[in-house]
Amino acid sequence: FGDNMESHFVVPRRLRDKPYELIEAANDWHYAMMNDLPRNEFYRSALRQLITPESFVLEIGAGSGLLSIIAASLGARRVVAIEANMHLANVARQIIHANGYGDRIHIINKMSTDVSPEELAQYGGRPTLLLSEILGTLLLGESALHYVADARRRLLGPGGAVVPPRGAQFATLVESFDIASITSVKLPPGISLDYFNSLQDTTSMVFTKQYGFRFSSAAYTELAPRTPVLAIDFSADEVGVWGGESRTTLRATRAGTVHAVMASWEVYAGEADALCMATHPDATLGNFPRDMQWGQGLQLIE
Amino acid sequence: FGDNMESHFVVPRRLRDKPYELIEAANDWHYAMMNDLPRNEFYRSALRQLITPESFVLEIGAGSGLLSIIAASLGARRVVAIEANMHLANVARQIIHANGYGDRIHIINKMSTDVSPEELAQYGGRPTLLLSEILGTLLLGESALHYVADARRRLLGPGGAVVPPRGAQFATLVESFDIASITSVKLPPGISLDYFNSLQDTTSMVFTKQYGFRFSSAAYTELAPRTPVLAIDFSADEVGVWGGESRTTLRATRAGTVHAVMASWEVYAGEADALCMATHPDATLGNFPRDMQWGQGLQLIE
Repeated sequence: FGDNMESHFVVPRRLRDKPYELIEAANDWHYAMMNDLPRNEFYRSALRQLITPESFVLEIGAGSGLLSIIAASLGARRVVAIEANMHLANVARQIIHANGYGDRIHIINKMSTDVSPEELAQYGGRPTLLLSEILGTLLLGESALHYVADARRRLLGPGGAVVPPRGAQFATLVESFDIASITSVKLPPGISLDYFNSLQDTTSMVFTKQYGFRFSSAAYTELAPRTPVLAIDFSADEVGVWGGESRTTLRATRAGTVHAVMASWEVYAGEADALCMATHPDATLGNFPRDMQWGQGLQLIE
Repeated sequence: FGDNMESHFVVPRRLRDKPYELIEAANDWHYAMMNDLPRNEFYRSALRQLITPESFVLEIGAGSGLLSIIAASLGARRVVAIEANMHLANVARQIIHANGYGDRIHIINKMSTDVSPEELAQYGGRPTLLLSEILGTLLLGESALHYVADARRRLLGPGGAVVPPRGAQFATLVESFDIASITSVKLPPGISLDYFNSLQDTTSMVFTKQYGFRFSSAAYTELAPRTPVLAIDFSADEVGVWGGESRTTLRATRAGTVHAVMASWEVYAGEADALCMATHPDATLGNFPRDMQWGQGLQLIE
């Protein structure tokens, strides 16, 4: 078992000709992401309010092509989906054809920063809507503003819409003896391992997925209000806006032991930002896939 | 936040002179392992039944030295703790001194397979008890039998005891729509992503810690009895015993959809194997550190 059996494993025939990195990406997070039905509905609702028969949608970081298909299904005349990973781009092409959108959705296998306005022009003018879901466990952890701002400035047509248009990164203070029990050592009296606690990593922002648990199923108490530490306007902000350092004061409003800062985000869309997608554990109760794809960030406190 | 702040992070002074791999090992799993109090009690109870004032205990894979300290605290005249990682060996030395066992516990910074009987002889004869906790998420996933059998054969004195002496690897069939929701894609009617499911990895044995969830807090049903697929006698088995392939038939005894094989283990000690330490989710309820250190293995089923 394990060591003994691995050399005897039979690789399923359907996997023999697939690149390993594609298998890994699908199993690590794509399945969870695609099964996050409230995520899909957030995008569908946001797009439904904006798409007309004249819409030319540009998606960056298209992955499997799901959001581009949603855009096409809502009536956009043209969708161009940019995906830098060659294997994913090939998968997206197959899925788009299987769903009957081969004539309206076109895949470009490049980094969005390497796509020129001229390359897009051959699909009929300039895009009227810029679509993306390149958010990480931290709102900007996968450089979403960098790619959105670049595509918005160089590729999107004048007055074009951005989906999602806005977002906020939140932080709060949490007490969690569950977290304490895996991030420092405290034994009953008799043996002291205190020296080991000098190795506690209070420097790294770690993701719940890396630790292997879900906040929504761990015992924790918020000791401070959820506080925005960044408010991003994807439809207007430039990268430089957030190039510096910013400081936000979190003040505990309940008594307890602050074990960690918990980081989660929300993005908004629709009229008066009525649509919201959030990664806070209150928002992921009953949404196992969202916890498994994004989860939350946490940084331990000394 | 994230990308923007990382370059400004202040590294705590206490971490500046620590090797990164040591910080990582402590935070990844050592804290959780040491805080698994039922684990510590399993070893304390097993050792208490065996240790006399004449005992010479040899621990392999000593880590922080906690189990060696327990052995010394139970009255062993001598403990030699072998730890191959130089940084951990240094930490163990500090902890052993801080606990006042510097005269009775000696650390050897080598692989146990590189330690000779002559090297041990200088600490007073031959060991009477071989102690180890080098179990992985799979019982033999970290080659426990390889190291135990080698040390038992070359280093342990005649008639010496082995702790733990026995263990079993179990497998069962589980239905879990939580797991299905992150390991394949199934959307409501309208868009088909079925092609993506050809990438489902049914080849790898994956650990719950890698997925980022705990079985003890996920929805699942066992569809078959928990079945031993390996029974290991650490006090007698040689590595070759399990060098080949073995087949075990798991038969579902309840109706349902088999999504995965779940793998967990138990080890036994004490008179009539009355002491047991297990990684099955029923055994980890209320033991967050054990889930975070070992968790369970699972392999998806086509």
